[in-house]
Order: sequence, then structure tokens, then C-alpha cells
Amino acid sequence: MNLDRTNPEAAIAEAAKACSNWGRWGADDVLGTLNFLDAAKRREGAALVRRGVSFSLSQSFDMNGPQKGWRRRTNPVHTMLDTGTDAALGNQGFPHGIGGADDVIAMPLQCSTQWDGLGHIFDHGKAWNGRDAAETVTSDGDRVTGIEHMAPYVAGRGVLLDVGRVIGENGELPDGFAVTEEHLTATAEAHGVTVGRGDIVVVRTGQLSRTRRDGWGDYAGGPAPGLSFTTAGWLHTSAIAAIATDTWGFEVRPGEFDHAFQPLHQVAIPHIGLLIGEMWDPDALAEDCADDGVYEFWLAAAPLPITGAVGSPVNPIAVK
Amino acid sequence: MNLDRTNPEAAIAEAAKACSNWGRWGADDVLGTLNFLDAAKRREGAALVRRGVSFSLSQSFDMNGPQKGWRRRTNPVHTMLDTGTDAALGNQGFPHGIGGADDVIAMPLQCSTQWDGLGHIFDHGKAWNGRDAAETVTSDGDRVTGIEHMAPYVAGRGVLLDVGRVIGENGELPDGFAVTEEHLTATAEAHGVTVGRGDIVVVRTGQLSRTRRDGWGDYAGGPAPGLSFTTAGWLHTSAIAAIATDTWGFEVRPGEFDHAFQPLHQVAIPHIGLLIGEMWDPDALAEDCADDGVYEFWLAAAPLPITGAVGSPVNPIAVK
Amino acid sequence: MNLDRTNPEAAIAEAAKACSNWGRWGADDVLGTLNFLDAAKRREGAALVRRGVSFSLSQSFDMNGPQKGWRRRTNPVHTMLDTGTDAALGNQGFPHGIGGADDVIAMPLQCSTQWDGLGHIFDHGKAWNGRDAAETVTSDGDRVTGIEHMAPYVAGRGVLLDVGRVIGENGELPDGFAVTEEHLTATAEAHGVTVGRGDIVVVRTGQLSRTRRDGWGDYAGGPAPGLSFTTAGWLHTSAIAAIATDTWGFEVRPGEFDHAFQPLHQVAIPHIGLLIGEMWDPDALAEDCADDGVYEFWLAAAPLPITGAVGSPVNPIAVK
Amino acid sequence: MNLDRTNPEAAIAEAAKACSNWGRWGADDVLGTLNFLDAAKRREGAALVRRGVSFSLSQSFDMNGPQKGWRRRTNPVHTMLDTGTDAALGNQGFPHGIGGADDVIAMPLQCSTQWDGLGHIFDHGKAWNGRDAAETVTSDGDRVTGIEHMAPYVAGRGVLLDVGRVIGENGELPDGFAVTEEHLTATAEAHGVTVGRGDIVVVRTGQLSRTRRDGWGDYAGGPAPGLSFTTAGWLHTSAIAAIATDTWGFEVRPGEFDHAFQPLHQVAIPHIGLLIGEMWDPDALAEDCADDGVYEFWLAAAPLPITGAVGSPVNPIAVK
Repeated sequence: MNLDRTNPEAAIAEAAKACSNWGRWGADDVLGTLNFLDAAKRREGAALVRRGVSFSLSQSFDMNGPQKGWRRRTNPVHTMLDTGTDAALGNQGFPHGIGGADDVIAMPLQCSTQWDGLGHIFDHGKAWNGRDAAETVTSDGDRVTGIEHMAPYVAGRGVLLDVGRVIGENGELPDGFAVTEEHLTATAEAHGVTVGRGDIVVVRTGQLSRTRRDGWGDYAGGPAPGLSFTTAGWLHTSAIAAIATDTWGFEVRPGEFDHAFQPLHQVAIPHIGLLIGEMWDPDALAEDCADDGVYEFWLAAAPLPITGAVGSPVNPIAVK
Repeated sequence: MNLDRTNPEAAIAEAAKACSNWGRWGADDVLGTLNFLDAAKRREGAALVRRGVSFSLSQSFDMNGPQKGWRRRTNPVHTMLDTGTDAALGNQGFPHGIGGADDVIAMPLQCSTQWDGLGHIFDHGKAWNGRDAAETVTSDGDRVTGIEHMAPYVAGRGVLLDVGRVIGENGELPDGFAVTEEHLTATAEAHGVTVGRGDIVVVRTGQLSRTRRDGWGDYAGGPAPGLSFTTAGWLHTSAIAAIATDTWGFEVRPGEFDHAFQPLHQVAIPHIGLLIGEMWDPDALAEDCADDGVYEFWLAAAPLPITGAVGSPVNPIAVK
Repeated sequence: MNLDRTNPEAAIAEAAKACSNWGRWGADDVLGTLNFLDAAKRREGAALVRRGVSFSLSQSFDMNGPQKGWRRRTNPVHTMLDTGTDAALGNQGFPHGIGGADDVIAMPLQCSTQWDGLGHIFDHGKAWNGRDAAETVTSDGDRVTGIEHMAPYVAGRGVLLDVGRVIGENGELPDGFAVTEEHLTATAEAHGVTVGRGDIVVVRTGQLSRTRRDGWGDYAGGPAPGLSFTTAGWLHTSAIAAIATDTWGFEVRPGEFDHAFQPLHQVAIPHIGLLIGEMWDPDALAEDCADDGVYEFWLAAAPLPITGAVGSPVNPIAVK
Repeated sequence: MNLDRTNPEAAIAEAAKACSNWGRWGADDVLGTLNFLDAAKRREGAALVRRGVSFSLSQSFDMNGPQKGWRRRTNPVHTMLDTGTDAALGNQGFPHGIGGADDVIAMPLQCSTQWDGLGHIFDHGKAWNGRDAAETVTSDGDRVTGIEHMAPYVAGRGVLLDVGRVIGENGELPDGFAVTEEHLTATAEAHGVTVGRGDIVVVRTGQLSRTRRDGWGDYAGGPAPGLSFTTAGWLHTSAIAAIATDTWGFEVRPGEFDHAFQPLHQVAIPHIGLLIGEMWDPDALAEDCADDGVYEFWLAAAPLPITGAVGSPVNPIAVK
């Protein structure tokens, strides 16, 4: 697929039309591609637990994160309502020596490891399934496709595609590297793994490993490796349930058009209805996969059922 | 075990001594009873996925919650940074028709479905494993046993003990009902299920079903069914990894002493090192278990790795 | 003025037309009636400082407030980032014995003593000065009439109208009592004070005194004494700069129509451009005014310049 | 006064002893030097209103601030609960065409223009008036000297000392410039103004003007002009009620000791009981003072009565 760098709007419109899942699961659908993740897929995923080892694919939630304030996205602010220090000094008013600590968090739902909900991105005023964005996501939140609807379902077969390791140098793709369908396919072949309907695909580019070494820099919103706009067709036809990356924004930045923002999001979320994960940390899992050569696993990555949310922090757990 | 209602401090001290796991996993331990949940247990848990159906055990995270402000605990406040309404009106400054919605949450980590971290409760200035509470949980958070340490591990075999259904009337225990070891054992026998080392036990009292019908009332901090103080020994010797209930506070309220706050917490968290879940919603799962007679399942309940947190919201996923 | 209780929309439209200040201060105006508060008025106000005594007209900002969550309005949540307890224990990492305490607040800008900004209320999609509400107040906040524009100006001559004391029994008006122009005029006459162009008028109904005695009850949104819808004309022709009350919502509740929400707001803010204060605490000042018979004073009530805010917490200071 | 750069602890101890106001206003005092601001001073201040012009001395409260996350200090996060966009689309459920916008803020109380409360800084575990810091400022906030106690009183005579203009080049002092008593005195003389008991002194260094031109850089916590440690004696003997600067931290940075944090704070707040303002914006006022040659004015700078707060955002209003 050749892209005309000068005409993103036409390319987006074409891909949107080609990849649309609108109406596929009925007019009332609130799950999008998560519909592909069915009971059979969960059985298949659970059967992948052979050794019983588990991995968190989550980054930390704290002030040492990459956010710099763009669109009011801060790092998580965690404060204490009560502490052990106060308990030890008997400041708390409880009887018989009991003491307690409580805490509070304030954070953007997009600040660290997250799922993008179906109400997170729109195309020309349209949300997932052809709904009117203006009616769907208001100041009250996502009144139709809030992420709470996905709460019970995000557990199934996970597949790691360590593109950084297979295609990159020293395990990392450079910033601006566009990962194409060919790269994904080659990686899967190198791993000896297949990707198919209902899978949750985790793509490792290696950018997060780089920031661990070099500091966050512009991780939040700056140049990054990521999926090529041209993967829209594969994202659609593969019928995967979800895809996540170790980058801020899932798709390559700067993009493949002269001037665009997140063109692949614009197709993937409102038209494909694809569940997208960002800022995941697949590194510990990737080490293990490289060691044992097994790139598929049981994955549970349940969003918090925050009513009306267009995203959710998540701690994905992979078990092999 | 007979309790002297008038002397909680002695009873707590005695139970603390009898049930202590201090040093059991070394001086540096940050996991407590989660150490019991090992690879073999995860394999056992995964093997319980037979039908592939999944359930969320999480309550909602929104303003319609039970919190009334005690100790500054509010319900979650979810606000939008960007909306579909703005996107549709072209207010966002993005090119080519893309629009987006972002959101923010501010919430106590103990406001809805949660895990209590090991730094949540102290006994006479001592935290889990005998640490000095004053040094462990400061205004910076839990500097030693923060819940982030548990992030990769909380996935294994879950067992539902629907005490409300087995022991209660119409599926519910009344407020103030103390669930004893005998009740737990009788329930397990009625279910045909065993509870053992490394399991995550979910106890349904039915109180949440009642609030669904009657309104929250004093769900947050008021009278409730819950575990008897006398179960401390069972919580210790059973070697379970974790236990969760459908109530605000896990243990019975009002308690079994004339004047005490949360005496079972005071033993279970700092001395046993027990991972405790509160405000879970087991009702949909319980219906299914009653239907198919299977009360064991795969359970993934990964806390968010909020650095230094003494608790975490969680969306537990059960798969059968 | 007789109101047709059954037709609020017509009454609102009529009052809006009769009282409109649209265009009065130019198309770009962002100050509304605050334009009436000029340098001469500030000189007049300062000259009222005779004894040098000062009063805060602010309620507290803490969890013991009246908010119950309606429209996600909570009471202020104040948490500590560092404490003296930690400082005393040397937990902070500072040299030479210095210790510090920092804190954080999360609060609705309408939670306690406040000014309503010009972007707070709309009438049929129109904001102050005839602007399109949809373009003016977006998820980015009030992009035109944010309260920051008022930051330097809200200081001048204040007048207390203690209607509770003059008209009520035992110093209090009952809930549902509609304060008319006649009540206001009679009160001013009883006080021996005049109200005119550029003044900041503080109306005491006595409801806050009642809640101090009886508890908050439904102070936030429930029945209350307050200004009659029929005062719209007076609010317009008197050319006052601002008006504030000791109630949650400024106007009488339940209102004078069979079914309406805040009809006087709907006229006063978007059409008159009136600066409205709510949840003020005039009680200490009122005691002093009753004692010395002087109901006019210097008043500084500067909103925080929160960029794009449609309201601001404020601590009004009256000096006599 | 010659400082031994190598021994801050001794110098602090000496200054603390020399400048202590402990007990001066009784054992129960919660106001510190604000006690100097009496009724006579307020009358004197009000009499300074000659022209009636008013100025805000507040910086903005928004994401475009200088905070970078040190000690979890973020810039203010302002979000909307309701917007005009939603109102215009009829999404709000109100009758008769009324629409509304509400908003929320989350911010450190030290993030922008602020007063430091008396519980903000400690010396060797001691808070203002000799109180035990550990007992005074806990996780519940400042239980004794919370800033709410100052709410009615901070209005009086203000004096601008534009040291940047008088001593600096092009109106600005360079970073690291220590402002001494001699500089303050010379500036007052150049202005033809006196500073005395009960005054609120505003010191302009010009650093804020520089950041306006060059960007925030390290304004929050980095090098800055500011008061010399040697001014401790003057701060004490002058009996001023309060002092504020246009810098992040009031005192010069880096300081005059080889290794110290905020040595002047350590004397001024816990020992002198001095009310300190930081991050004020005196630039518009300073322009006016340079124009008319009058450097004294009526100043109202009322902190929000946030219960137990160790600081407060403030919008100071100067009227000349």
C-alpha cells in the first residue's frame, strides 16, 4: 500500500470505508472487536498456562512518569490521607493500638499503562458504530460505550510480537520506524507463533527499554516507532480483539503523512472498533519469551469499570 | 474460641502472637500470604477454565457509590478533559476531522472494589513483618511494602464461598452476623469445594445484594455481616493467599468486642500478612456458580502498580 | 409584578429582554456589571474604613461542607504531601533540621464560598453578551469570559442587607421565602443605607445561621429563602456590580414557577451580566453591623485567577 | 553580618534565638506576625486609596505554570463538569433552556501565588511558637495553626520595594543575588517610602519579568534572586506583618551556605512566625508605582480558609 503523504484525509476516508465494522455486532454494540474474544478463545488462552509464571505488563503509576502536561495530562498524584507515622504517634483516634493508612490518587486515565475506550477517538464527529460523537461523549463521560462495559471480558489468548527484537537492532526499533504488516508477519514467523481472531496482540518496539536507559525524553507525544497507517487493513481482517504497544501512542510518530495527528487511531477506534492499549511494559515478559521461545500466553487485562470512562489504567497480567 | 467481649486488646495480642507470619518469608518480604500463590497454584487455577465464561467482580467506580466522606473518603470523581461534543463542534484544533476525548479521575484508593495493601493497617506501631509503621508508611506512601510489589502475582485459583446462600435466608446474611470457621467450612462442603494453600477466597455475605435493592444506607462503615474475629486462626492455618468480601470492611460490624474498631484487620494484615479484598461484587459469579454447581475458577485480580500505595482499585476477573 | 406560575419560559424571555445588558460595554466585554465598579466607587469604599476591623465572609473549605455529590460536586478534599510528623521523624531528606509540610486540594469551584463567573449559566445556548455558549465554554473552560479577567477588580463598597434580621423572625427567613424588591428596599431603609451603582450587595437571609444550628440538611440544592424572580428588574436598574447571599443558590427555592430550575440565574448571568456570590457567610459581619448600625464597608472579594474558570472560591474581606 | 558558609546549622540556630517571637502573643497564638496588623494599620492602609485603581498581584492558575513535579507539586489541573457546548446541545436535562457550566480544580496549595502558612516549615521538629511539629501538622493537616485562622485579617498597608528596579540592571536582579537589609533600605529611600510595624511588604526582584520573557526554566526551585539570610534580623525587628516576593522561594538560591536548603525559611516561619508570600506578580503594580512615584497602597490578600492548610492560593488586590 502506497501512501500519498500529501492527502491524509483521503487516505483516512478510504481506510475507514474499507475497514469499517459498523453494524457488524448490531446497532447497540458497545464492545467492538472485543466481540471476537469469545469463550473458546478464553479456553484456548487458559490452556497456555504451562509453567505458571506470571508477569505484569504495567508501567508504574507515580510522579516519575513521562507526562509533561500536554492536554492537561499529568503524572499520577498519589497522596496519603493517613500514614504509619501518624499511627505510630497515636494521632489517629483509634482504640487498642490499631492504626491505619489510606490514600488518594488523582490522574488522567491516559497517564500510564492504559486501554483506550471506544469513546476515545472520533472521525468527523462520528464515534464507534457510527454514533454521533456529540451525543455519545459529553461532559458526563461516555454515555454509551463507557469502558465499564468491557470490564468482564478482557481475558484471553495473548501473543507477543517482539518486533524490536526481530527487526530492530539491539532489540529496539528507532523512533519514526513504521511497523508494517510485513514486519508483524515476519516477527510472528520468527517467533513460531500465529495471530488470529480474538487474540490480544502485544507489540514490543523497544522504545520503552530505550527510555529506561536514556530517560523519558519526549516519550509522551514525541517521535516513536509504531504501527504504520498501512496496517489498518490487517488490524481489520485479522479480527484480533485488541492490540497494545510499549509506546505512548500505538502508531508511528512522526507519521507517514506530511501533516496529520493520529491517522491510524482515526480509523482503528471509530471504524474498526479496536481496543488499543498504550504505554504497556512488555519487557520482562519479552525476556522470558526469548528464553523459552514461547510467545503466546494467558492474558488478563481488565479495565477498571469507571462509569463513562474513555480509557482506563490497567495492570495486564500474562501467565505462561 | 470464646471471646471476652470486654478485653479486645488481650484477644488481639493473643491472636497476633498465635497467627504471626513475621519472618516466615525473610526479613525483606513485601508479599505476605501472596507467597502462597505459586506457579503450581496458577497452573491449577488455569485448569479450571472449562467453559470460557468470564465475570467481573468489581463494583462501579462513579459518584453513585457508598462513600459519605468518612476519613475523607469520597466516591470517585471522573471528569472529562475533552469530549465528543467539543470534537463534533471542531473545538479541538486537530486536523483532518480527528477528534478525541480524554478523562481524569480523583479517588481514594479505598473507595470501591479494592485490595488492601500490607501497609494499610498497623498494630501498636508495627506494620507487616514487624516493621516500624512510622518508617514504613510516611507521607511519601508505603516506602517498603507498596502495592506495586504485588502487581505481577495476583492470579490463581479462586474459590467462592457463598455463605449468604448456604447459611443465610434468601441468600443474605443479616448485618452484624459473624461468619465463623464453621460457617466457612459448612459452606465449602455444601458447595463441594475445598479451600487450601494459595487460594484466593471470595466470601459472599449477600449484603451487597441487599444494598442493590435497598440503597447504600450505611454500607460504608455501618453494620454488616462479615468474618468473625475468631476466624483469625483459620485465616492463618489455611494458608490462603487472599480473601475478599462483598462488604465494606471484611469483618463483622458491629464487632464481637464491646469497643473495638477493626480487630480482625489488626491481626490479619500486620501479623498474618494477609491480602484482603473489600467491596467486591460476586453476585453475577455467584449466580453462575449456583447454576452449574462449580465454585472454583481462574481468578486474576491485579492491583494497579501505584508506587507506594496502601491499596488499589481492582477489577477482578473470574473465568470458569 | 405578577408571575404566571405555569409559564416560566415566557417570563424568563420577557425578563431577559427587559434586563439585557448585551452590548452595553462593547462586543468584547468580559466583565459584565463589574464595569459599574469604577475608581470612584473604590475611593468611596475605602473611605468607609473607620474603625479598621475586618471580617471574613467565607465559609470553611473542608469535608464538613454541605455538598452531597449532585452534579459531581463534592466537598473539598485536602491532603498532605508532607507533614510535621514526618519532619519530626527525619523522614524528609532535608539538611540541618529543616522540615516542611505541603498540601494539595481537589475541589469543585462551586463547593463553598464562591463567585459564579459569567460562563456559569446560559440561556437557550447563549452566554453573556450574546455569545454562543458552545463556543465560549468548552472542555477547555471558558475561553472568553473566564473568571481570571475579573481578578484585579472585585474590591469596592459593600452593603449588607440583613433581610433575615429586618423581615424574618429571630433573624431568619424561612425556606421558600421569596425576597422581593420591596423587602430589599425596606431592609435598606431600616439599616439607613442606600444601594446604588457599582455596589457589592451582600444579602443575609439567615439560612446559614439555621444550618449552623440544625446541620446542613439540604442546604446544597434544597429549599431555601432567596431572591424572587421578580427582582430581575431591580438587579438590572440598580446597576449594582455584584450580589451575594448566604444560601447555596442565590434565588428562592422552590421557585415561583411550577416547574423551573434557576430562572433568575437564567436572566441575571447571561443577560444582565451580573456577578453572583453564593454560600457566603455574613454572620459575623452582620452581628457587627447590628451593633454599630453601619451597614456599608470596604469589601475585597478577589476571585482566584484560574484560567478559564466559570467560578472561583473566594474569601471576601469586609473592613469597617 | 558575616556568614560562615560552612556552618549553616550554627548560623540558623543563632538567628533563630536572636529573632524568636515564641510566646510573644501567648502560648495559644495562631497568627504570628499577623498580630502586628491591627485596626490602626488597616485605617492607615485604607487611607492610601487616592485614585481608586486596583491591581491583582496574582499569577495565573493553570497548566502553563512553572511546576515540574518536585515533591509532587504539579500545576493546577482545571476540568469542567459541565460545559456550554453540552448546554447548547441540550445534553444537560434542565428545563426551559437554562444551561450551566461547573468546574473542578486539583492543585497543590503551593503551586502558584500563595501564602505560606505557619505550619509550612519546621526547625528541628519545632513549629511556630515552639510547638511540636509532629503533633501540629499531621496527615489531617495543621491542627493548630491552619491558615483558616488568618482568613479575616490579611488586609492592610502594602509597600512595594522594587529592588529589581532600584538595584538591578534593566529592572531585574540576577539569579543568585542576595538582597540584604541595605538593599531594602536603599530601595525604600529611593521610593520615598517607609516600612514599619504591621506592613505587608512586597519585594520585586524582577525574576518573574525575566521568566515572562525567557520562559519558566527553573523558576520552581532553581537559582533565583531573593532575600539574604542576613535579613532575618530585619524581618524580626521591623515588625512587618508579612512579606512576599515574585520568586518561587522568597530567599536567594543558591543560598549563602555551602550546603543548605531554605535557611531563612527555617528562621522566619517557625521562629519569627512570619507570613511569607511567594510567586506573587507585582509587575503591573510596579509599573504604576514607577509612574506615579507612590509605593504604598491598600492591600487585601485573604487566604482561602482551607481548614488545616499550611498554605493557600491567593489573589492579592492592591488599590491606590
